[in-house]
Amino acid sequence: MKSSPDAIERLVTLLSKLPGIGKKSATRMAYHFLDADPSYARLLAEQLLSLHQAIRRCSRCGSFTETDPCPICTDPGRDPSIICVIERPQDIRVIEESREFRGHFHVLGGLIAPLDGVSPDDLTIGKLLSRVRGSGRIKELILALNPTVEGDTTALYLQKQLKELDVEVTRLASGLPVGGDLEYADRLTLSRSFRGRTKMG
Amino acid sequence: MKSSPDAIERLVTLLSKLPGIGKKSATRMAYHFLDADPSYARLLAEQLLSLHQAIRRCSRCGSFTETDPCPICTDPGRDPSIICVIERPQDIRVIEESREFRGHFHVLGGLIAPLDGVSPDDLTIGKLLSRVRGSGRIKELILALNPTVEGDTTALYLQKQLKELDVEVTRLASGLPVGGDLEYADRLTLSRSFRGRTKMG
Repeated sequence: MKSSPDAIERLVTLLSKLPGIGKKSATRMAYHFLDADPSYARLLAEQLLSLHQAIRRCSRCGSFTETDPCPICTDPGRDPSIICVIERPQDIRVIEESREFRGHFHVLGGLIAPLDGVSPDDLTIGKLLSRVRGSGRIKELILALNPTVEGDTTALYLQKQLKELDVEVTRLASGLPVGGDLEYADRLTLSRSFRGRTKMG
Repeated sequence: MKSSPDAIERLVTLLSKLPGIGKKSATRMAYHFLDADPSYARLLAEQLLSLHQAIRRCSRCGSFTETDPCPICTDPGRDPSIICVIERPQDIRVIEESREFRGHFHVLGGLIAPLDGVSPDDLTIGKLLSRVRGSGRIKELILALNPTVEGDTTALYLQKQLKELDVEVTRLASGLPVGGDLEYADRLTLSRSFRGRTKMG
């Protein structure tokens, strides 16, 4: 049943393809574009049109960047001897916001997931190995991969591949979230937080 | 703190202006555009650019339309003697989807809200009155306005304005939502559903 003009329907269809956006939210958005000043839709359209031209992948770490190598890879204030290995370029943002890490990054481009047809060859693991071998001054690789089955599989695989190289491999601690409640922790999280318990004082 | 390239930041800023979209969702969307095929961003951009050219207001009912008058106002299968009065053009969609109403519409363009500076003159009330006077065959106006303070105020104002004209003014029933639970009904909804109780059988 058609209850909106075609131009609105087409816009709603495209907007519903965004992550987390259903038909209802997409409809609200579409009408928002109509209610708002036309310059808003135009600005967004221009930004979308220039996006893929402005953004490329950093040839060193694989993150999204406007300049190659990216600002993080060329920042003299950062420590190139520690590399944080992440799944996707967007993981950089949240790690940068934590202000905990001042080394370099390496984007894997996914996690090993045999059921989804993602094998180690689909990721930038080979590139990571030659990066470690080629540099000679990389001391630590921090695996910042999700604590999921795929993250665990990928972490184990990387650990094996890196065994012969003279580099320490660590992984982000997994456990109770800060501000969380023991009562609501799931069994696996609780079990991990027991195994990873730290000495006080 | 800058943790993404400028082109992504600009896109996130624009996307966060959408209704119900915070910075986090906007960021997810922006990266989705980068992960997806470039044709997706291009298609959406083109749709946004053509939107305001394709869509205008129907000169009769005030709804969004590609043709003036709109398909509903010109549909010979619809009853022009009943007009459903709504706040915004997007209300048409949900009413059409209920398949309960086969008359015409009238978009007020808002609700009377003195605190927000919206007076009757800001709405298309004058146009509605001349539409009723001019046609001579409009029998009923159904006020499909939200059961809120603003909706109630606007409904009362319209009822007063329409008193001298030979037209029945009704308002959508307000009460317990279908599938709802009496236990969770708020006091006002419950009180309305008592006052609007209907005879059975």
